[in-house]
Amino acid sequence: MVERRKPIKVNEAVTRVMRYAKQGSVKFVPIEESYGEFLADDLIADHPVPPFDRSPYDGFAIRSSDTVNASSQAPLSFKVVGEIGAGSVFNGTVGPMETVRIMTGAQIPEGCDAVIMFELVKELAGGEWIQLKRPLESGDNISFAGEDTEKGEVLVKKGTYINPGIVALLATFGYKQVPVSVKPKVGVIATGSELLDVDEDLQPGKIRNSNAYMVLSQIKRAGGEAIYFGQFSDDFETCFNQVKNALEQVDFLITTGGVSVGDYDYLPAIYEKLGANVLFNKVGMRPGSVTTISELDGQLLFGLSGNPSACYVGFELFTRPIIRTYLHSVHPTLKKAEATLGTDFPKPNPFDRFVRGYLSFETGKLVATPVGLDKSNVVSTLGRANALIVLPGGTKGYENGMQVSVLLLEDQEGDTLESFFSPNINDRRSRRNGE
Amino acid sequence: MVERRKPIKVNEAVTRVMRYAKQGSVKFVPIEESYGEFLADDLIADHPVPPFDRSPYDGFAIRSSDTVNASSQAPLSFKVVGEIGAGSVFNGTVGPMETVRIMTGAQIPEGCDAVIMFELVKELAGGEWIQLKRPLESGDNISFAGEDTEKGEVLVKKGTYINPGIVALLATFGYKQVPVSVKPKVGVIATGSELLDVDEDLQPGKIRNSNAYMVLSQIKRAGGEAIYFGQFSDDFETCFNQVKNALEQVDFLITTGGVSVGDYDYLPAIYEKLGANVLFNKVGMRPGSVTTISELDGQLLFGLSGNPSACYVGFELFTRPIIRTYLHSVHPTLKKAEATLGTDFPKPNPFDRFVRGYLSFETGKLVATPVGLDKSNVVSTLGRANALIVLPGGTKGYENGMQVSVLLLEDQEGDTLESFFSPNINDRRSRRNGE
Repeated sequence: MVERRKPIKVNEAVTRVMRYAKQGSVKFVPIEESYGEFLADDLIADHPVPPFDRSPYDGFAIRSSDTVNASSQAPLSFKVVGEIGAGSVFNGTVGPMETVRIMTGAQIPEGCDAVIMFELVKELAGGEWIQLKRPLESGDNISFAGEDTEKGEVLVKKGTYINPGIVALLATFGYKQVPVSVKPKVGVIATGSELLDVDEDLQPGKIRNSNAYMVLSQIKRAGGEAIYFGQFSDDFETCFNQVKNALEQVDFLITTGGVSVGDYDYLPAIYEKLGANVLFNKVGMRPGSVTTISELDGQLLFGLSGNPSACYVGFELFTRPIIRTYLHSVHPTLKKAEATLGTDFPKPNPFDRFVRGYLSFETGKLVATPVGLDKSNVVSTLGRANALIVLPGGTKGYENGMQVSVLLLEDQEGDTLESFFSPNINDRRSRRNGE
Repeated sequence: MVERRKPIKVNEAVTRVMRYAKQGSVKFVPIEESYGEFLADDLIADHPVPPFDRSPYDGFAIRSSDTVNASSQAPLSFKVVGEIGAGSVFNGTVGPMETVRIMTGAQIPEGCDAVIMFELVKELAGGEWIQLKRPLESGDNISFAGEDTEKGEVLVKKGTYINPGIVALLATFGYKQVPVSVKPKVGVIATGSELLDVDEDLQPGKIRNSNAYMVLSQIKRAGGEAIYFGQFSDDFETCFNQVKNALEQVDFLITTGGVSVGDYDYLPAIYEKLGANVLFNKVGMRPGSVTTISELDGQLLFGLSGNPSACYVGFELFTRPIIRTYLHSVHPTLKKAEATLGTDFPKPNPFDRFVRGYLSFETGKLVATPVGLDKSNVVSTLGRANALIVLPGGTKGYENGMQVSVLLLEDQEGDTLESFFSPNINDRRSRRNGE
């Protein structure tokens, strides 16, 4: 009577979902609006940097060969024959024992091959002459053309999150309009007759709907455009039509709740009536084992659990990489790192656990500590979590001080699928032990 | 003729700026728009969580005292007297050898003190009876009222960046409208006659203006509202009026360039004519030693360097904590951590250096490596930087493998001023060596 489901491994589940990953289109936005978007094309240098030999300081441009004999005992005098503000150029060639006053960033004048800073010379005759007390070498205080970047160099790969440094690069190379990835439209429908809306007063047996607002925020953090379709009604036909209607308006659809084997869990029946292909409906993970993902003509439906943390984890493991791939990233998953476990988890669990944790940096080391009891219904600790602690399933528990993998929730860099799938220290340990 | 400036230490400079820090006002936004904002008031639980004893699974609610003698050899039968969907309640009391079908999240009915999962019972007579093969203890599979959170508890402090987990909390506790910090208006004026706008073709001696767009993005990352006033003209009176006009429209004003001692550096004269109080005009740091900050009737003017990385560092050290304080954060500075240095810096420098670096996590340790040559005019590496490597000034260089402090650029959590100022490992080492 009750359906028995066979769990699959998390990596297998991610692999099945990622078969339906696709890339979105490209649009152009003004550079002022590019921060926080995802680059949709490689960023290429349209000129060398610096574009010409220039002065990195305010000072005097000079011929180094004229300075060989300069010393404190025998300072040499140079005639100031001109001055160059940043952005202007010196017309003509600087001759022997001549110098030109030059501002930071200005082009080195013809004939000169070194610059000396203002502070290191003495000006004479109201600035008509300067006195130099040390020899200069050719190239002293010159930023050479192309020493930073050569023309045509790929400086940032497409799919990268645009941070302020990348905005500086876009400006330097003339990207007035920036090619960015169009965000996928991700719909959210909440299910659960126990759910009150956020502005309703509490009633016996009911709780306020937190999953929907949480997932809408997770979509934004992942780089998607979040669209909320509201809560399901209790009537099957209405539910079915809500899902069908939402699917037409979005790239991906998320439902929260309704995927267990309980009597009020309509999603399996809705998938069936839609003719959707269920990729899996049970994953060997805690929380979130009932996560159910299906596809209809290539369009993904994410059936996330109704438990807040199961919902949270399901999104980050399965939906986030789909959104990031749509944004042209080749690092679609959460960034994975290794950390020292800051507590004991003595109870073994056959399923892989993803424990909400706080990753801290202690004297140069990563330390991961759970932010609270890892009950799947605990909501109050979710705000402090900045990482998921990965505890692979097996016959043994975990101890304080062990090395474990963590997935970084607030990182924008991500990881490749290959790196995400690579066995972590505990898997390797388990395999050595023949588990 | 050339002004000699006396450098002050970075911590002293930050302290002088922070004397003028002030907090902004509060506004309310719908919960759907709260992600990425900063909480302007403590988040308080308006009810216990869970609000009632509830079932964490789909199953059957039961009186544990009735189950003492259940075993595989002698299964016990219970009559199913009702069912409770999530969100509905059972009216009446469950009696001896009776049970009620219960959905995940539903309230435990009167009389029951345990739940058994669907999968672990056998249903008989079309669901009218169930058969139980094991005893239950009182409290088995029950989430008790208040076990997660007590009413009145402060769950998140004001000034905190609102992440998806915090959005879930806001929904749970009925924050349909969320108190968030009003963003400060931060103006930007770019100076430098060598600057072309981003859409102009390169010209001899000129470069495109990258600082302005970079700083506009840094303002957004820090949580401010960025307003661009364009580039300065070359005429002093016009410049002066541009600054004066901009000051009236913003909370803080940033200028890039024009703060050196060069002949075209108007900012010092503008500060003088405005009657602004210059807090400092030379900091013992590289890059960014010419960073000049002044205040006029308590309003801060940040005179950042015209060099891209000096400008970048100056913003993160001095402007960011002012913006975050305005947003009510008590962790206004960049987050500080310790890391292993991934390269040599053999050349000693009397000034503290802030080297753009990439912080990676390698087998549980933080490793910081510069993203390129640390020339102050290098722009191409800025995009890869996710940290500033702090190398305190002194008479010795640094070696690969040493422990150094790093400041995390993409982190949203921040640090207290006290923690930011605390001596790092190298300072401690330097002091031991009597430097």
